[in-house]
This record gives sequence, C-alpha cells and structure tokens, in this order.
Amino acid sequence: MALKAISAKDAASLDKDLMEIGGWSLDQLMELAGLSVSQAGKYLAAPELQDYNVLVVCGPGNNGGDGLVAARHLAQYGYNPSVYYPKQGKNELYQRLKVQLENLCVPFITDFEAELQKTDFLVDAIFGFSFGGPLRAPFGEIVSQIEKSSVPVLSVDAPSSWDIQAGPPKEGPGATFMPKALISLTAPKPCVQYYRGRHFIGGRFLTRTIAEKYGLDLPQYQGIDQILEVGVDAEGRL
Amino acid sequence: MALKAISAKDAASLDKDLMEIGGWSLDQLMELAGLSVSQAGKYLAAPELQDYNVLVVCGPGNNGGDGLVAARHLAQYGYNPSVYYPKQGKNELYQRLKVQLENLCVPFITDFEAELQKTDFLVDAIFGFSFGGPLRAPFGEIVSQIEKSSVPVLSVDAPSSWDIQAGPPKEGPGATFMPKALISLTAPKPCVQYYRGRHFIGGRFLTRTIAEKYGLDLPQYQGIDQILEVGVDAEGRL
Repeated sequence: MALKAISAKDAASLDKDLMEIGGWSLDQLMELAGLSVSQAGKYLAAPELQDYNVLVVCGPGNNGGDGLVAARHLAQYGYNPSVYYPKQGKNELYQRLKVQLENLCVPFITDFEAELQKTDFLVDAIFGFSFGGPLRAPFGEIVSQIEKSSVPVLSVDAPSSWDIQAGPPKEGPGATFMPKALISLTAPKPCVQYYRGRHFIGGRFLTRTIAEKYGLDLPQYQGIDQILEVGVDAEGRL
Repeated sequence: MALKAISAKDAASLDKDLMEIGGWSLDQLMELAGLSVSQAGKYLAAPELQDYNVLVVCGPGNNGGDGLVAARHLAQYGYNPSVYYPKQGKNELYQRLKVQLENLCVPFITDFEAELQKTDFLVDAIFGFSFGGPLRAPFGEIVSQIEKSSVPVLSVDAPSSWDIQAGPPKEGPGATFMPKALISLTAPKPCVQYYRGRHFIGGRFLTRTIAEKYGLDLPQYQGIDQILEVGVDAEGRL
C-alpha cells in the first residue's frame, strides 16, 4: 500500500488547520495520536504482559506528549511502563499528562542507562516532524545509547536524530539508528524513504478534505483499529 | 463478572476528581468515553459497513458530547452516522465536536421521525447519570418514538428517561423503554438492576486509587479494547 509523504512544513500547517478550522484541541489530537502509538506498541510486544517493561523516552515537545499518552494507555493494557522525560515541557497539557501517569504509579526515571538495561521495549518519543537538529544534551547521548543497545525500538513519527527530509545524519548520534518499528502520525514524513523496518500509520482523525488539500492518502484503517501497518519495500518505498 | 454500581452523586464527584486532581481535561475524558461508545456500536453492528445507517441522538450535556465523539469515530469506521441534536450545548467543546463532524460530512438532521424510519441502529446519548427528570420537550416525544420503534438501541450510561437510581419511569415516555444494549461509563449506575440486555463497560481511564476511593471495581479490559462486555443476569445483577 502506497501512502504519500508530507513535508515538515505541511505537517505543521495541517496541525494548525485541524485546530483552527477543524475544531480539534491539542488534548484530543494528542489523545488519539498517543492511543495509536500504544496500539502499535501492543501489537509489537510479547503477548505475555506479565513483567513486560516498556521504557518511553519523551522529548520536550508534542512528540514527547504523544509518548506520555502512549505510556498511560500501555499502563492500562497491563504493561510496566516507565518514562524518561529529562527536558519536561512547561505546557500545562504535558504537566497534566504527567499527573495522569503518576496516578497510575508509572515511574519517571532518572537513570536512563540503568533503565535501558532492564527494559524489553523502548518507545522513542523524543523528536517528531518539527525536529530541526542538532541534538541538544542530553539527547545526543540518549540516542547513542539507544543505538548501541539491542532493545527493540518503536519510533514515533520519525527516528529521533533523523532529519525529517534527509534521513539519518551522516555521522554522530543516530547515524546508524534503525528502529525496529516506526509509527507515522497522520502521514509518513519524507525521511521514511531511508527507513527499513515495520511501518505503521496512526492518528485516525484525518478527513477527506484535509487529505486532499495536502495531497495525502486516507489510510484504509480496518474496523476499530487506530493503526494500520503499511510497510516499506526494499527500496524504501511505502 | 460483578461490577459495583456508582450513585449519580459519586459519579459527579469522581468526574470532578479526575479533572481537579487527576490531570484530565473534559476533552480527553470525552474522547475516551465516546471512543468506547463507538467500539460498542461497532461490536453490535452488522459486519457489512456498506450503507449502514446509525442515528446518534444527542442531549444537551456531556452524554450528548460522548455521542458526538462516538458519531465521529463511527464515521471513521465507515458507517453512515447522522446526528439529531435538538438542544445544542453552548459549551465550546460541543461546538468544536460539531465542527469535526461537519468536516466529515456527517449530517445534523432535523426530521427525527423520518430519520428513525431509515436507520439501522440508534445511539441514545440523550441523558446520562446527571438526569434528574422530568423529560423536557422535545425529549419526551423522542423517547416515545424510540420506544415504539423496532430499531436496536445502544444507550450511553443509562437508558434515557430512566431515573439513575430507581430505573424506568412508572408511566409515560420510557416506561417500557428497554434498549438492546447499554454501555456504562466508568461504572454501572444503580438503575442497571432494572436493565435486561447486553451490557458493556467503557471509559478506560479509571485508576486503582480512584476505584478504591469510590468502592468500585477495575474492569478487566482485554488487550487494547476500550470496552468490556459484563452482562446482566436474570435478576438484574451484573
């Protein structure tokens, strides 16, 4: 199944349209985006929930917010999520999402390296389509550690450190970062052409009118699913 | 499976806790509540989506808001929902939910009687746990028409017209109203003891702490499901 990609500029404009014309609040969009991330996580994880540790690494912006929502749903599904959130967004929504997680007894960890050793699965919600580089501390080091570890990773919207247009950096942290899975929100970003792995689409709120405005495809989600596996072929084409 | 009921007063207090202590916004709670309603709708509907008409009847408050969210998800699932919303809440959230539906080309109908004739399924999102009676116009007439029709009904939180504690009214509209299905949000309301039909629970955001505070059970949702069928036995016990 082919799905057209959307540039970072158009993705920002589309989000603006959803909120300014479409009647959406950020709370609603983030809830459905994070829900779809959690569904991809569930799909990829082991069926035995007992003691299954998921480490959700959240960046300071909306990608991190999607991660916080995903962590909440993963906790509701019965996993043991923990959250690493070293640069916390000051936005009141992020703060509320944090309270929701604390009320579910989801730990906010500080020793990333130790947590990485004992996790079964990592959700990379560090940076999304608005990433313009370079990786500021501590995220360069974090990406390097994820890159070196053998933990399976689900990246949200884009592998963190990758340029949204040009893909993986030529050198430094992220140059060899290839997550096991990627979930594109609303539409794939151009860097997906450099990606090899399982690929999902999520964010089931796109309308036909907005899809047409940005020249996008409406994903053919099935039933009540909030995600669709779309794949990437050997040449990086969707 | 037994699930304890929650009184109208405690249900209002619980919602307040979720928002004042729990970090939740009404946008988020309504999104997950409406999503669970849509999943119960999908579960109950025919598998052939082609030309399957769903009429969502929305009241002026939060129950109606849950219905608006459900209608949006049902549209995304591929059904043909239409919405009857005769007393529209002025709250900006309801207005935004309406815009979201208009952008999906979901019609807001005015001729309820005509629409009832051609619908395959009706979602009763008129009144929830805060209903204190009596039914004001036009809802008495609407409930009477639903009651007389043979269209299968899914009621949201409580069959509209029923007293939340005492169940169906002794006479007048609703006295013989028995929806095919009911989805209780967060916890069943006491009137469920008078209910006979398929019974679901939804609203997967309850935490252990809040459940304990109100003496509720945490429903054992499965996998990524946002609903759980809990049933009602011959004596009206859950």
